[in-house]
Amino acid sequence: MQKETIERIRKFTEDRNWDQFHSPANLAKSISIEANELLECFQWSDTDYDINEVKEELADVLVYCRNMLDKLGLDEDEIVNAKMSKNEAKYPIEKAKGVATKYDKL
Amino acid sequence: MQKETIERIRKFTEDRNWDQFHSPANLAKSISIEANELLECFQWSDTDYDINEVKEELADVLVYCRNMLDKLGLDEDEIVNAKMSKNEAKYPIEKAKGVATKYDKL
Amino acid sequence: MQKETIERIRKFTEDRNWDQFHSPANLAKSISIEANELLECFQWSDTDYDINEVKEELADVLVYCRNMLDKLGLDEDEIVNAKMSKNEAKYPIEKAKGVATKYDKL
Amino acid sequence: MQKETIERIRKFTEDRNWDQFHSPANLAKSISIEANELLECFQWSDTDYDINEVKEELADVLVYCRNMLDKLGLDEDEIVNAKMSKNEAKYPIEKAKGVATKYDKL
Repeated sequence: MQKETIERIRKFTEDRNWDQFHSPANLAKSISIEANELLECFQWSDTDYDINEVKEELADVLVYCRNMLDKLGLDEDEIVNAKMSKNEAKYPIEKAKGVATKYDKL
Repeated sequence: MQKETIERIRKFTEDRNWDQFHSPANLAKSISIEANELLECFQWSDTDYDINEVKEELADVLVYCRNMLDKLGLDEDEIVNAKMSKNEAKYPIEKAKGVATKYDKL
Repeated sequence: MQKETIERIRKFTEDRNWDQFHSPANLAKSISIEANELLECFQWSDTDYDINEVKEELADVLVYCRNMLDKLGLDEDEIVNAKMSKNEAKYPIEKAKGVATKYDKL
Repeated sequence: MQKETIERIRKFTEDRNWDQFHSPANLAKSISIEANELLECFQWSDTDYDINEVKEELADVLVYCRNMLDKLGLDEDEIVNAKMSKNEAKYPIEKAKGVATKYDKL
């Protein structure tokens, strides 16, 4: 996400005095709620979805994720890279290639 | 997210031939599943959470969001800015300031 | 659910002094968390699932729903019948037959 | 749930020819989606919720759980009792009393 976009999200919250509602727990609920509005785009069909609704709901998830990163003072690239290192170790290419098996059953 | 991080996520999927599992519907399910692992950090308490678990689960949500952006050829800043324009119109500052009321009840 | 099963769920909570954690909000989080463990059974395939895992996760959802009914003093049949009346009105047979369209688009 | 309520739910689905949409995977998505509409009642406050909305959303979760039980030919009491036996073993009273610690950390 570009700096301008991040600043726009922050300003939106500040202008409305909404930081008071953005406890980490409330933001976790919000991410799940929006993730399920995204999931609703695929409720009855995997292939017949409305791309405009998907864009909006995915954007909502990303905005609340940004709110949580800000609230907890986290750096997105740092936490993602740390998790990717774990994932790369948990799913060695030779074992995981082409199979959707969870790591504890590999 | 920086280019290197995005490239790392893409390479992880490619190296394992996992693109075949990344239908938009499966990724929507995955975002919800990871969002709920994040929510689990706050299941019984809003304030007594393990920040390291929060970091990992939030990272998982962000990685699957990136997978979905890639799968659908979407630009993160574009969809977020489009949604922010809508949000700004739905929640006028003078009405929304300091209240957590949903737009359809403002 | 039979009376004995309901009593067993209640006794489980009482024996562990867990009623203190069962705020309606925490139970709502718990229902979502377990619903997503159920969803995880279908994360990468709609048809290749482990029926034993499905049974366990569905049971977990049902147990937390029972906890919430108890906590709020609700009667399951009463709230389900009230909602079914609404659903029957929202989805008239002649319009809804054979289509998975949401009521606001029917 | 009483027999009449269960029959009403079944008739609702049959009258609309909706069994075709009720794959186990679609029902799992639906349970999660409704669980999150329930969670939305508690999005910004744990205590200031609309009980009528809670009743409706909890009913929706229960209806989709019933759909899934029917679809898979499962007996609610059987799967719940089997899971309660596991829970009772995983959370021995003397260890779990008064603490919300997950079993793998007890």
